[in-house]
Amino acid sequence: MPEIREDPVSGRLALVAPERGRRPTDFRVPEEKTETFRCPFCPGNEELTPPEILRLPPEGNSWKVRVVPNRYPALHPETAYAESHSPFYRRSPGAGHHEVVIETPDHGKPLHEFTPEEADLLFQAFFLRAREFAAEGRWRYVLLFKNRGRRAGASLSHSHSQILALPFVPGLVEREMVRAEAFLRETGECLFCRLVREEASGPRILAVDEHFVAFQAFAPRQPLETWIVSRIHGQTFWEMTSDLRLEFVALLLRILRALEATLPGLPYNFFLHTEPLGSPALPFFHWHLELVPALTRVAGFEWGAEAYIVPVRPEEAAAFLRPLIK
Amino acid sequence: MPEIREDPVSGRLALVAPERGRRPTDFRVPEEKTETFRCPFCPGNEELTPPEILRLPPEGNSWKVRVVPNRYPALHPETAYAESHSPFYRRSPGAGHHEVVIETPDHGKPLHEFTPEEADLLFQAFFLRAREFAAEGRWRYVLLFKNRGRRAGASLSHSHSQILALPFVPGLVEREMVRAEAFLRETGECLFCRLVREEASGPRILAVDEHFVAFQAFAPRQPLETWIVSRIHGQTFWEMTSDLRLEFVALLLRILRALEATLPGLPYNFFLHTEPLGSPALPFFHWHLELVPALTRVAGFEWGAEAYIVPVRPEEAAAFLRPLIK
Repeated sequence: MPEIREDPVSGRLALVAPERGRRPTDFRVPEEKTETFRCPFCPGNEELTPPEILRLPPEGNSWKVRVVPNRYPALHPETAYAESHSPFYRRSPGAGHHEVVIETPDHGKPLHEFTPEEADLLFQAFFLRAREFAAEGRWRYVLLFKNRGRRAGASLSHSHSQILALPFVPGLVEREMVRAEAFLRETGECLFCRLVREEASGPRILAVDEHFVAFQAFAPRQPLETWIVSRIHGQTFWEMTSDLRLEFVALLLRILRALEATLPGLPYNFFLHTEPLGSPALPFFHWHLELVPALTRVAGFEWGAEAYIVPVRPEEAAAFLRPLIK
Repeated sequence: MPEIREDPVSGRLALVAPERGRRPTDFRVPEEKTETFRCPFCPGNEELTPPEILRLPPEGNSWKVRVVPNRYPALHPETAYAESHSPFYRRSPGAGHHEVVIETPDHGKPLHEFTPEEADLLFQAFFLRAREFAAEGRWRYVLLFKNRGRRAGASLSHSHSQILALPFVPGLVEREMVRAEAFLRETGECLFCRLVREEASGPRILAVDEHFVAFQAFAPRQPLETWIVSRIHGQTFWEMTSDLRLEFVALLLRILRALEATLPGLPYNFFLHTEPLGSPALPFFHWHLELVPALTRVAGFEWGAEAYIVPVRPEEAAAFLRPLIK
């Protein structure tokens, strides 16, 4: 029977309607067309991207990861108003950085086939760029996100992610923090410690590692929506050691491989919710990654209500995925 | 240059980044496949839908509009919990109604080709169903929305809309009301009266009719996002006369035809934001329709930030669309 669920972190509603009859494998994944142009992310074509910002390893010709400016930036460090507007409308120059992380020199290698050491370079690059942005002092947030597959908004198939330095804290992150702070005030308990505890022993769990848990979201936006949450209370994302980062990356890869085994070619987005730039560790927040597959369409109901109709029960999805986590 | 804009009604942010270089016509609209199955919305196939709830005209064999239950309902009037959960998780039975309005007997006729009298029957059916839902006393909101085209979530091409009776006020509507009430308290002015006045004389206007304005949204979620807002202060959607409704419908059709002329086959969603069921007219709210085309993908940034990257300036889109409004 359908259920109305509220995400304990964001307050977002999901209408979980399993009568719609789909199992986790019952989604059509569109085939990706083979690109016929020269890929700007391939070795030898470096001159097709804007000038490189960072490469790993930093020296030598054979890079493993490159960071370059986005050719179509949503934000730009130097910007000005296009025209005047009435004071009724709040707006500001679109100041920020918008960069692309080319995750591998190998055109045909998707992220789930990386070794943990290879995938770790993406997060290493993110750390290095965030440190730069923090030093610039102008940005309040840095958002790492990945689009895989055309339906998930990726315009190139060569594996890559994006980094945005923002002059504001995104509304969703703000809301998570406000709600988590209120939860701490009202219950004396950290919302994320509670979430980790509930999920670790609950029907949506995928993996409980030493410092991280992975589970199907209770009130998802999409079928198979998966969260990885840090279990460590009182540590910001930016304070994570490289050992911890590798543990996190290894878990992310195990999740990606289980999803790929379920629906080969699955288009997905993931993003990191960290503390705002320069924030100390917060007694009510744990950084986390949210992975949202692109399986159902955002349509009239979703736009109009900002709630989501989800045709698969997360508990069923978790039962299906668990044996696939290696 | 990119701009960060805040929607005055919802507070939602848009990154308007026209450097991404697209003009209103520079979007690829995917071709719709011809359906090979027997269309359940066509005359003669009435037995393929669940039992009819309403038809217009109410008597006779040749219906113009039918309302039927959604075969895959997101909500159901009689429902119960599937299993128990920890009290940490807020959830409730998915109680509600989920219905489909078959807008025409003509399989190949899209809404923008309707006469105002034909299209009015959709809204007449919505009025009739909402009156029923109000009488049931269990529902707090009724949402009318339309998905046109596969990319906008329509699974059938035969023109139709959907009605959901909800046991909650959708989060987005709630937020619009809270913000509008605060605006009234702080400025002494109705937010929507102000919005109408600003837009009617501004660079995003499409049409100023006697009782309605249509304009490009200041901080859109998608290119060509269009709003139609009632100019009448202190009247709920449910109090609208049939003459007014016809004026509204005629404007909606003019907008749909201008959009179709710009991008033939444009996939889009629209939805109505009315007062909650049973609410009196509110001194801070005007009902309105929001039309969101499906031209760019909801991707990592949009999910992670709940803000939207939009590659076309609304002012440019309005300048393009205005001459096409007949």
